[in-house]
Amino acid sequence: MAKKVAIIMGSDSDLPVVQDAAKELKKFGVEFEIHVMSAHRTPEAAADFAKNAADNGFGVIIAAAGMAAHLGGVLAAYTILPVIGIPMESSRLDGMDALLATVQMPKGVPVATVAINGAANAALLAVQMLAISDESLAQKLTAMKLDMKKTVAEKDAKLQKTILELV
Amino acid sequence: MAKKVAIIMGSDSDLPVVQDAAKELKKFGVEFEIHVMSAHRTPEAAADFAKNAADNGFGVIIAAAGMAAHLGGVLAAYTILPVIGIPMESSRLDGMDALLATVQMPKGVPVATVAINGAANAALLAVQMLAISDESLAQKLTAMKLDMKKTVAEKDAKLQKTILELV
Amino acid sequence: MAKKVAIIMGSDSDLPVVQDAAKELKKFGVEFEIHVMSAHRTPEAAADFAKNAADNGFGVIIAAAGMAAHLGGVLAAYTILPVIGIPMESSRLDGMDALLATVQMPKGVPVATVAINGAANAALLAVQMLAISDESLAQKLTAMKLDMKKTVAEKDAKLQKTILELV
Amino acid sequence: MAKKVAIIMGSDSDLPVVQDAAKELKKFGVEFEIHVMSAHRTPEAAADFAKNAADNGFGVIIAAAGMAAHLGGVLAAYTILPVIGIPMESSRLDGMDALLATVQMPKGVPVATVAINGAANAALLAVQMLAISDESLAQKLTAMKLDMKKTVAEKDAKLQKTILELV
Amino acid sequence: MAKKVAIIMGSDSDLPVVQDAAKELKKFGVEFEIHVMSAHRTPEAAADFAKNAADNGFGVIIAAAGMAAHLGGVLAAYTILPVIGIPMESSRLDGMDALLATVQMPKGVPVATVAINGAANAALLAVQMLAISDESLAQKLTAMKLDMKKTVAEKDAKLQKTILELV
Amino acid sequence: MAKKVAIIMGSDSDLPVVQDAAKELKKFGVEFEIHVMSAHRTPEAAADFAKNAADNGFGVIIAAAGMAAHLGGVLAAYTILPVIGIPMESSRLDGMDALLATVQMPKGVPVATVAINGAANAALLAVQMLAISDESLAQKLTAMKLDMKKTVAEKDAKLQKTILELV
Amino acid sequence: MAKKVAIIMGSDSDLPVVQDAAKELKKFGVEFEIHVMSAHRTPEAAADFAKNAADNGFGVIIAAAGMAAHLGGVLAAYTILPVIGIPMESSRLDGMDALLATVQMPKGVPVATVAINGAANAALLAVQMLAISDESLAQKLTAMKLDMKKTVAEKDAKLQKTILELV
Amino acid sequence: MAKKVAIIMGSDSDLPVVQDAAKELKKFGVEFEIHVMSAHRTPEAAADFAKNAADNGFGVIIAAAGMAAHLGGVLAAYTILPVIGIPMESSRLDGMDALLATVQMPKGVPVATVAINGAANAALLAVQMLAISDESLAQKLTAMKLDMKKTVAEKDAKLQKTILELV
Repeated sequence: MAKKVAIIMGSDSDLPVVQDAAKELKKFGVEFEIHVMSAHRTPEAAADFAKNAADNGFGVIIAAAGMAAHLGGVLAAYTILPVIGIPMESSRLDGMDALLATVQMPKGVPVATVAINGAANAALLAVQMLAISDESLAQKLTAMKLDMKKTVAEKDAKLQKTILELV
Repeated sequence: MAKKVAIIMGSDSDLPVVQDAAKELKKFGVEFEIHVMSAHRTPEAAADFAKNAADNGFGVIIAAAGMAAHLGGVLAAYTILPVIGIPMESSRLDGMDALLATVQMPKGVPVATVAINGAANAALLAVQMLAISDESLAQKLTAMKLDMKKTVAEKDAKLQKTILELV
Repeated sequence: MAKKVAIIMGSDSDLPVVQDAAKELKKFGVEFEIHVMSAHRTPEAAADFAKNAADNGFGVIIAAAGMAAHLGGVLAAYTILPVIGIPMESSRLDGMDALLATVQMPKGVPVATVAINGAANAALLAVQMLAISDESLAQKLTAMKLDMKKTVAEKDAKLQKTILELV
Repeated sequence: MAKKVAIIMGSDSDLPVVQDAAKELKKFGVEFEIHVMSAHRTPEAAADFAKNAADNGFGVIIAAAGMAAHLGGVLAAYTILPVIGIPMESSRLDGMDALLATVQMPKGVPVATVAINGAANAALLAVQMLAISDESLAQKLTAMKLDMKKTVAEKDAKLQKTILELV
Repeated sequence: MAKKVAIIMGSDSDLPVVQDAAKELKKFGVEFEIHVMSAHRTPEAAADFAKNAADNGFGVIIAAAGMAAHLGGVLAAYTILPVIGIPMESSRLDGMDALLATVQMPKGVPVATVAINGAANAALLAVQMLAISDESLAQKLTAMKLDMKKTVAEKDAKLQKTILELV
Repeated sequence: MAKKVAIIMGSDSDLPVVQDAAKELKKFGVEFEIHVMSAHRTPEAAADFAKNAADNGFGVIIAAAGMAAHLGGVLAAYTILPVIGIPMESSRLDGMDALLATVQMPKGVPVATVAINGAANAALLAVQMLAISDESLAQKLTAMKLDMKKTVAEKDAKLQKTILELV
Repeated sequence: MAKKVAIIMGSDSDLPVVQDAAKELKKFGVEFEIHVMSAHRTPEAAADFAKNAADNGFGVIIAAAGMAAHLGGVLAAYTILPVIGIPMESSRLDGMDALLATVQMPKGVPVATVAINGAANAALLAVQMLAISDESLAQKLTAMKLDMKKTVAEKDAKLQKTILELV
Repeated sequence: MAKKVAIIMGSDSDLPVVQDAAKELKKFGVEFEIHVMSAHRTPEAAADFAKNAADNGFGVIIAAAGMAAHLGGVLAAYTILPVIGIPMESSRLDGMDALLATVQMPKGVPVATVAINGAANAALLAVQMLAISDESLAQKLTAMKLDMKKTVAEKDAKLQKTILELV
């Protein structure tokens, strides 16, 4: 049976950014759950979720957190599933604190980190992971890559028509 | 058939760090190849490798590069396989340039970034990805997690015996 | 025949900044093309453009990209023409990620980097490069330098009249 | 009965720095325990320790960790005791990652952060906390402050004698 | 008799942030004073306050300052009470200057630093310190921790109802 | 005869910040001139100004510039008068580029650097320099210091009356 | 007649790094001069050199400087030749100060910046500029690009033979 | 009577760097005192020194401190003499913490900041300040500027002779 993706965010204020991950997963037809859980305010809930994630049918966990962003690391501590970390820009340091707190994990417990606020890419990365053993998802990824090319080519074509007015 | 992991490094001077990834994969019995290919000096070779990686039996690509570390991004541009980026410390900026050049990928083309010089974690992350659909690998990861716990517990026990001399 | 300048930007959202480069080139009567091409979304198009740029009459390539800004490096990998990189501020890190990803190129493949969002200067630098072998352009650059001096001197003169009210 | 101080470090490689905290506590006659526990490798042990710390007679917890330093935050999540964080320099980023991962805690779960590698100050801060309700410790802190003054004054006096040779 | 908490801020423009600390203390029923005093503009007043703080019934001092934030360090120089530093975002460097100027204290004179603009956490940390010897405060902290958990769980429950509309 | 202070700014867009320096000098009755001159656009004018500044009755030069802020260094290269540098926030890097480009001068040619956008302090520093040999200015500085104290004390007194409403 | 390249360094202590630029130019048969001139200690000499550089047969100027690296900007202020800046690592900030002081030039006066200590790339960039109008140099650049590819391919081939021993 | 310069350092471990300031002052025949005083360990001594510095014949104060470098600010708080700050590299952050803690002073209390470890320049800046009203010192500064030019010119001449061997 197809594995689900879990999207965990440290605060519901992260939702406007994080929902892009959900939208992306939906496009690929990947089932997902989305939860608010905090490494610091609900540590037991986060630990329990991670411990049981594999048994509950999840294949990948996405964790979005800002500031001293421990959520990805805490989840990764309790599971062998790949954990993808989205450093949130929510802090006053443009998300640099969250980036370092997410990516600089010690040996033995990696967190696959994407760009600051990179929710859509976190979802795509999760799809790529699932697609290793799911040919249908792989084909959808290939199609998406072609779409991206087409979109950029169309933008270039459009630019050629309007450039004279801009300069 | 089990998927292989590709380890690509931008320069052979990265080998002393990158070989930790190879060692880790070997521990897990995951087949791998390791290559020197440069996003800037051998761009066609890198592009060709990425384009054919899935067909050649690879499930995950690990890319290690320093400075303006484009290798992960270049490979990810040509494949739908998940690409893991290791930012190398090789630059004069402690690897901060490589970290940002690896992790801050635009929407559509993620690179799963690990810590600066985090070669062993890159390999573990690759194993976690493969383990989503490989129960045997999953069991090995669980065993490794238990080993880590045991090792830390032993170090703590040892510390209790020696602390009196240290203080 | 006079060489053209190519302006390549990674995203059409960069246009409001990048069009300053086009305007500057127009002032100098330097022919140019402007394209949207992405190192990550249309890597083949970018590679093809760079490979054929010299044969297509280009003398200099300007590349504008943000975040993990690989565009300049990717173009430089496929051409011997000088490539000028404009790090775009588009990221959440004030363009520092784009600056490091553009300027910290490895030995053998330089990218001539200008200031963050420095589109006008990228164009001027391209003109300076072409002017090495084009006396007419050199004279225009000399005239522009005199104009700049005059403008600053006029601003200073104007300031002397208004300063009493300001303080 | 006097409260103990717990010193928890993420890795036994932190010991050469962290033992300064133990030495400082010993000078003040404050009882302490010192343990190796990892937020990521032994998360349950760390959580259990924190949950039971108050009942086990601890008044303050000191946590030393490097890189994506989550240890202080994890412990603070499970206890209402004040947690002091020592960001360790162990990473390739001079400890800046550990500093941000320790100090930038979200509302509700503070970690009292000291300087990078500031083990002695962590211990002093713990003593200051205990001294709020322990007049005897307060007197020792006052004495230490006088000693510091005397030491600096002596160094100044000594300098006056040697300065002529130095210049 | 219960100890008071002093909240000292370097400028009255810090009040909108700093008053969160006062509100938090009020919730816990901890008596406090709040003052404007500057390490640089009223150094004697700051020194006098710190010297007499213990005798005047204070148990903890909170210092909020921006830019070259010396206030915490100056107060700590004149007292053995624990001093908590809030680095204020007031500068043009997002508060990074205030963070480093507050946390990087030399051996002998610690300042317990919280997050940039972390006024509420500064108050909580002060309460935690007082709670070491005040069982009633400890119970309130435990209750607050439970409340936080409940709030996050409620937000998660609410999210489950609304997620379908968001994606 | 009393020495004048020169305020040189690299761009007239700096005026809204820089005029604070002029206002401060005016308060102290120090004569000044204010000019727009650019290290890069009018290098000869800047060099000439600096070379003749001492002969023209100036005692101190204040230089305000942003980005790769060379103005202070260029002026200091041509004069033995003390040069005060104001790093302007005008760049996309919050003025960090201007700060480093101003303060990190090589041996032999110092620039006395004040805070980013610190125009008023640049003027005060100039007054302090002139006051070394001008007792009347020294008295005004002493008076200003007392005023600052009084102002802070009044703000504190006012706060005591309003704090009850705020919390 | 073929244009020369000028290599100007701010201090003779930069020579061990900067001589790589000279060596690279020599390989390409490009005539060059190399000088010690300081933007701050010999500003007139630097200005004179830049003013006369075009008339003296130079086509490109390379400027190497550390700390508040003004040399590139000062030279660019006095010439319309393209100026390439090498930020030197000589400072205590890993060359980040020199990078920002070199690259963040204001509109009108670009400096083509290469990587920190990137002397060889500065020379290659100069050759690329000259090659715009020099077919023979262009062919040498093409040959060098092929050589780089061959070298990387050989390193990869060699790695395949030794990898078994390494892991 | 000629004013003296005071050199105050926060720790005697700063002496190897700070003595360069003393040597420079000696060259100019400027009388000086050098003291170890700490903003945090001997705050009263530092305050007293600053309060009485003008009366004791000092014209300028130089303060050298590392980490959360408060010394310059504390001295400036108690005197109207110009205070020059030397940010010391002593910390684990390459002196960036000391730089920000020294330069980012609030309005009303400037500290004239020089480069990290820039002890010689601090002394030169002090001499420049004293030279505003001391023609003899001004002549010595002019002579030093000429010497610097001569030294650089000699190094350039020497380089011309040796360059052939280097390349």
